Amino acid sequence: MSSTLRIGLAGLGTVGGGTLAILREHAVMIEARAGQRIEVVAVTMRDPKKPRAMDLSGIKILPEAEAMAEEDLDIVVELMGGHDGAALRLVTRALEKGKHVVSANKALIAHHGLRLAALAEKHDRVLAFEAAVAGGIPIIAALRNGLAANRITRVAGILNGTCNYILTKMLDAEADFDAVLAEAGTLGYLEADPALDIDGIDAAHKVSILASLAFGTVPNFAGVERQGIRQITLRDMYYARDFGYRIKLLGIVEKHGPALLQRVEPCLVPVTAPLASVSGGFNAVEVEGDAVGRVVFEGRGAGAGPTGSAVVADIMAIARGDRYPPFTLPTAQLASAAAMDASYRLGSYYIRLSLRDEPGVLAEFTREFAAQHISVKSIVQREIAGDKSAQVVVTTHQTNEAAVRSAVAAIQNLRCTVAPPVLLRIHE
Amino acid sequence: MSSTLRIGLAGLGTVGGGTLAILREHAVMIEARAGQRIEVVAVTMRDPKKPRAMDLSGIKILPEAEAMAEEDLDIVVELMGGHDGAALRLVTRALEKGKHVVSANKALIAHHGLRLAALAEKHDRVLAFEAAVAGGIPIIAALRNGLAANRITRVAGILNGTCNYILTKMLDAEADFDAVLAEAGTLGYLEADPALDIDGIDAAHKVSILASLAFGTVPNFAGVERQGIRQITLRDMYYARDFGYRIKLLGIVEKHGPALLQRVEPCLVPVTAPLASVSGGFNAVEVEGDAVGRVVFEGRGAGAGPTGSAVVADIMAIARGDRYPPFTLPTAQLASAAAMDASYRLGSYYIRLSLRDEPGVLAEFTREFAAQHISVKSIVQREIAGDKSAQVVVTTHQTNEAAVRSAVAAIQNLRCTVAPPVLLRIHE
Repeated sequence: MSSTLRIGLAGLGTVGGGTLAILREHAVMIEARAGQRIEVVAVTMRDPKKPRAMDLSGIKILPEAEAMAEEDLDIVVELMGGHDGAALRLVTRALEKGKHVVSANKALIAHHGLRLAALAEKHDRVLAFEAAVAGGIPIIAALRNGLAANRITRVAGILNGTCNYILTKMLDAEADFDAVLAEAGTLGYLEADPALDIDGIDAAHKVSILASLAFGTVPNFAGVERQGIRQITLRDMYYARDFGYRIKLLGIVEKHGPALLQRVEPCLVPVTAPLASVSGGFNAVEVEGDAVGRVVFEGRGAGAGPTGSAVVADIMAIARGDRYPPFTLPTAQLASAAAMDASYRLGSYYIRLSLRDEPGVLAEFTREFAAQHISVKSIVQREIAGDKSAQVVVTTHQTNEAAVRSAVAAIQNLRCTVAPPVLLRIHE
Repeated sequence: MSSTLRIGLAGLGTVGGGTLAILREHAVMIEARAGQRIEVVAVTMRDPKKPRAMDLSGIKILPEAEAMAEEDLDIVVELMGGHDGAALRLVTRALEKGKHVVSANKALIAHHGLRLAALAEKHDRVLAFEAAVAGGIPIIAALRNGLAANRITRVAGILNGTCNYILTKMLDAEADFDAVLAEAGTLGYLEADPALDIDGIDAAHKVSILASLAFGTVPNFAGVERQGIRQITLRDMYYARDFGYRIKLLGIVEKHGPALLQRVEPCLVPVTAPLASVSGGFNAVEVEGDAVGRVVFEGRGAGAGPTGSAVVADIMAIARGDRYPPFTLPTAQLASAAAMDASYRLGSYYIRLSLRDEPGVLAEFTREFAAQHISVKSIVQREIAGDKSAQVVVTTHQTNEAAVRSAVAAIQNLRCTVAPPVLLRIHE
């Protein structure tokens, strides 16, 4: 091949700038590896008047994103963000006009991935989104290709760098969530709407994409159960550390028979497990397959370079001629999966109770565990200076999640309970 | 596509059996993901009389491996091992006869990869060998596709599970190398010739393959500098631990300008680094790219399931139609690289000296460091019960490798030195 692959970049923010820089700096190497020259011929940007460090001479600057679908391009690269509006209209139109699409937009893929994949199939084009999950880690390629011979049983990962930064920093600096959040804001680490990160919405977008790829199911963002990190306290971090764990916000997908679990939740991770040592803004994903066992991938989850690396990898794969359905299977073959009932999910749990410091309370709450047939693994009560309540921390043996929730709900209603119990899953 | 991809499996040992089991158990899922039915229609095995658990009915059993090249097959899967003899003849002949080849044979690819890749190009066939490096970890796909937008600066990994098992076990069981080696032999963990593992030859095969993929250079197994683990003592493991490190056998490739470093050597890895916590038979590979930063992959490095997973992934990629040069670039574009001069390599080092326990020896050896402009970071001398020599452990700041080697050679010749110094690089 000696033709040139013509690229349009919609969005010239952090990721767009990184993508353009990689394509330029490594033009010769990329052409050699991809077998084709790759050239950015058109761009759009939110604010054309904003001063930019990059040289855009020779590149057509389009007045609006959607106009890009009408240009003479082989690939439209959508780096605008937002799951509706211009990004959705551009990607839809670009596919309709027979262009391949590369996107880093997890919200778009999580919300509209199925419809867009069907459109890509109809027009025999590629829709690729490696950059939408875990930045520079080639996790989508791994699920689609490298681990494709496996029946996947679970994928779990640290998928949001902001949350991981906050949780890491809380323990390092011995600071509360609110203090670290405020500092992160000052340092410019937060999105305009930090809820996207800290309430687990961003991680949930990625979870729904991973679930579809891992299990061949229809992407189902609405089906992701989601819990963020606002309620994580330094006190729980200390207890977790004492027990040999770190608290991490995990995105988890599991399949048991026909039932699918999709969840974002803070978990206790054993300090010796690979995910425990993933700190700051890094991401990591562990995949469990029936043949391969556990494989773990770790790398930077965001930023111009890492995300640009993933975008350009998708472009190069298109250049080389790799063709595959966006969610591994043709959309007609993607299965609908029922949400998993919590009573089918087994695991160990960490429970912190705030109880009146008076005789008989141990007997009261342990009765609730017994009623649910929950076997206690360890129990610690410590005197906390300046705190009139008794802090009791329990870890359980394997039990089912519905039983633990019932027990905790019952304990919450006990007369001896002075603050809502904290319930966290132990990720093993 | 609705045709059937016809597979011949040469070798029905651990990996061959694992490959056949995956293809059978997951036949429906694999067909859906690969877009084609994949069927094993012919096999060969070293000893056809050996009882096997698998059912081979309906599969043609060929009397000798080379006959497979003449069969009506789309892909020949070579799982025989050995870098010469029947494996080489089969792969050569299969490519000449227009068959794709998938191989798990690192020795074959390390020794003959360039010639075989040229043959694959000539006949427009795929030569794939994901299973040859790091078992189930899709590291070759990552270098070829997922991280292809990066200028790679270094790849370093734990590439031999046997060595990693021995090193892990030595510290866990507080046992010497010889004792753990003997136990591993009794447990059946060792190859017929354990030198392949413990002298780093197996890791060197993998290093030469990784170097070619990462840097676009001609595979050059003869150019791998190699040091095994026979000389690693429990004493050095204890010292390393005291300083916050673990000793790991690493395969390392680096490129500085036109010069290439390929090496297998035991190194000290900071206990907080991902590679430090890779234990037992696991493998791990860290890749550093200019855009993506550091990405780490961890998983099982051997065994029927993990290696079979990689073999089947290669088969599925061929079925889907992915086509690429075996070493990422066409063979004519692979560069020859000069070996890196040790004086260009910077790093920190661990040096253990066995010295006469008498006045003046510190002055004597520190003079040699000063002469080479080596800056000492830490120095510890401890009294060892029952040992008449003084054990002095030094770690250095960044310095060049040639200087450290010169200093150590000079110290070895000092009158006060009673046993050869131990020199290990600190991997950062």
